[in-house]
Amino acid sequence: MMRTRPLKVALLGCGVVGSEVARIMTTHADDLAARIGAPVELAGVAVRRPSKVREGIAPELVTTDATALVKRGDLDVVVEVIGGIEPARTLITTAFEHGASVVSANKALLAQDGAALHAAADEHGRDLYYEAAVAGAIPLIRPLRESLAGDKINRVMGIVNGTTNFILDKMDSTGAGYQEALDEATALGYAEADPTADVEGFDAAAKAAILAGIAFHTRVRLDDVYREGMTEVTAADFASAKEMGCTIKLLAICERAADGGSVTARVHPAMIPLSHPLASVRGAYNAVFVESDAAGQLMFYGPGAGGAPTASAVLGDLVAVCRNKLNGATGPGESAYAALPVSPMGDVVTRYHISLDVADKPGVLAQVATVFAEHGVSIDTVRQQGKDGEASLVVVTHRASDASLTGTVEALRSLDTVRGVASIMRVEGE
Amino acid sequence: MMRTRPLKVALLGCGVVGSEVARIMTTHADDLAARIGAPVELAGVAVRRPSKVREGIAPELVTTDATALVKRGDLDVVVEVIGGIEPARTLITTAFEHGASVVSANKALLAQDGAALHAAADEHGRDLYYEAAVAGAIPLIRPLRESLAGDKINRVMGIVNGTTNFILDKMDSTGAGYQEALDEATALGYAEADPTADVEGFDAAAKAAILAGIAFHTRVRLDDVYREGMTEVTAADFASAKEMGCTIKLLAICERAADGGSVTARVHPAMIPLSHPLASVRGAYNAVFVESDAAGQLMFYGPGAGGAPTASAVLGDLVAVCRNKLNGATGPGESAYAALPVSPMGDVVTRYHISLDVADKPGVLAQVATVFAEHGVSIDTVRQQGKDGEASLVVVTHRASDASLTGTVEALRSLDTVRGVASIMRVEGE
Repeated sequence: MMRTRPLKVALLGCGVVGSEVARIMTTHADDLAARIGAPVELAGVAVRRPSKVREGIAPELVTTDATALVKRGDLDVVVEVIGGIEPARTLITTAFEHGASVVSANKALLAQDGAALHAAADEHGRDLYYEAAVAGAIPLIRPLRESLAGDKINRVMGIVNGTTNFILDKMDSTGAGYQEALDEATALGYAEADPTADVEGFDAAAKAAILAGIAFHTRVRLDDVYREGMTEVTAADFASAKEMGCTIKLLAICERAADGGSVTARVHPAMIPLSHPLASVRGAYNAVFVESDAAGQLMFYGPGAGGAPTASAVLGDLVAVCRNKLNGATGPGESAYAALPVSPMGDVVTRYHISLDVADKPGVLAQVATVFAEHGVSIDTVRQQGKDGEASLVVVTHRASDASLTGTVEALRSLDTVRGVASIMRVEGE
Repeated sequence: MMRTRPLKVALLGCGVVGSEVARIMTTHADDLAARIGAPVELAGVAVRRPSKVREGIAPELVTTDATALVKRGDLDVVVEVIGGIEPARTLITTAFEHGASVVSANKALLAQDGAALHAAADEHGRDLYYEAAVAGAIPLIRPLRESLAGDKINRVMGIVNGTTNFILDKMDSTGAGYQEALDEATALGYAEADPTADVEGFDAAAKAAILAGIAFHTRVRLDDVYREGMTEVTAADFASAKEMGCTIKLLAICERAADGGSVTARVHPAMIPLSHPLASVRGAYNAVFVESDAAGQLMFYGPGAGGAPTASAVLGDLVAVCRNKLNGATGPGESAYAALPVSPMGDVVTRYHISLDVADKPGVLAQVATVFAEHGVSIDTVRQQGKDGEASLVVVTHRASDASLTGTVEALRSLDTVRGVASIMRVEGE
């Protein structure tokens, strides 16, 4: 049974994602209507530069006054694909106040102000959906929030930034250094002119905050996420990883502590075994590995960015929100009932791969081993290579708290016989 | 805001999956209540053998009269994990009539009578959810139906049977023959005493019917699915596959025709390149690869069977159905508006890998090539190996209709110089 009055949708932003959303709304109008149970109509598009030609969008729909658009009062859904904190935040809350539900792709905003935005949505009885904010087209938020709603998620570990995965994959497969691989990513359009948000892990950290919040039913803000970028990863690190049967990925890892009483969220480069499903994620693809009590190990894989993939996620949300509206209901809102404390990085339990340049003389290994023992860190393997009076020592530890591991490294640096710490990298995925 | 009157749930069947559902409902009661917004109460459990001790289930809840249980009239949700057509079908429709929504894990029933069951659910305003029916714990139905609701799915290709994947993986990694690998699967509990449903592809065909229906918004019944089992796959086939840089998987493939006007669904063993994400799915794991217009290529991976993983999927549905009930709404029902015709196997466009035993004399290749040309099938590669007056010819074709390929093979068999067709296998995933 099809309702004939169309649902009205406004689009905030008409860049790579927004224009694709508008295109699909037009070209697939009949399919969307059939799936929703009512036609959807593009009621307005807020842009910064109205002069730009926008194919397929009637000029009279285009406005530079986003505030007036969201205040119209006749909108059913506002799609926010502007990004950034302001004016997106104010526009979203204004949309709620004036009767519209919101579909957003804004990871930075959700990671920083998710709780307040959810509260505003609840207060006005609106939906706030944001599948596109994490891992582009990959259905992730809905599976975590709904499919696994009867399960207990213990870990979410993923490659959630395509730019850095492209760079690391290139370094792995060609032996290139970081700068060379970054230059290629920039030339091919995988990296932005200023790649800071990607390579320093800010983008991945925002996604980690959102994923941890949903997985653990706990508010996790961007500030709660430990973050290390991948600009220091070297070709030598990849060579070390290969010797261990590993590769290096920039991972977002959200974990429930073994005792269940707290959670952690972090982003950093890490070695993972080649046998791990995440190790074979190539190019700019994303993948997220989920471990839960009952389901066991799940993985979700797909394109993590791009206009069309992100639009796919936005439109999936749009269909859901429109269906909810017709049902007179709202979908699942924020679930933060567990309210677990977020522990600092020092409490994370992980493994280290440490390369030391040491003096090539007797007793060095004994000294180094003593430092590990004093910090309660158990050594898994040691590999020693001598050359011309210099020697290198590669130590891989068993699992220990990150604080103990950091303390160990600090103490190693102060040993006379340790000339330098060539590299430190966490080892994950076992 | 928590409602205090509990939602009442009845369980039909208390085997491997049912007992795990009951266990999680008890041990995770607080979490489920928080996520639903009301407590859930196990109101009754229908079993065949009441004498069996069922840990954690109060004896007074257990009954052998499933019909009386679903007719109680005070149930909110009935969870059907009996399997098979009857009595499951009648119990489900009776549950709808008496006020309950249904969560089912019954692939055979859904594949055969999905349309009628959906109609019954709609008639009474109930939900019918069945995430557990396809690929166990892997969230698949919800992502296809909801996350990709704004996209156009063109292909769903998956490993949806863990038993056969275990057997094929074993043959691939050890060089074992089919019987040897099956024996090991049986010994380890991956195959049932009568493995017919798995190895002949009936189980996968039921899942293909369900997936095709959801992906293409079209009714696809089990009878519409072309089915070939994997009992004829030999160690020699794996050797041929390796030479091509491929492995062999039993695939369920649901495709939209290139012109968009029809769909196909099929289950058969096929060679796929080692570089394809499905090639590295090991052991009893399942994975489903989805291609859509906007999202591009997605993959969903996880355990496809087992008590706890299947229970995870059932409980995710249970939470959704309970939430819908509290909202006074129902979730998305059957979507069959596209009503595309389902084409027969002959219309499928694919590639063949054909091994022929031929006479080792001049002119044989020309004869063979002529047969391909007469049937309009273009050859990609030919490899010829002579030995003791006998020769083998391995032909890999370009894409052609399955009918043309079948016709080609029939004509080859009738050639005097062709002593036998050693193997035929489709090649997918490019």
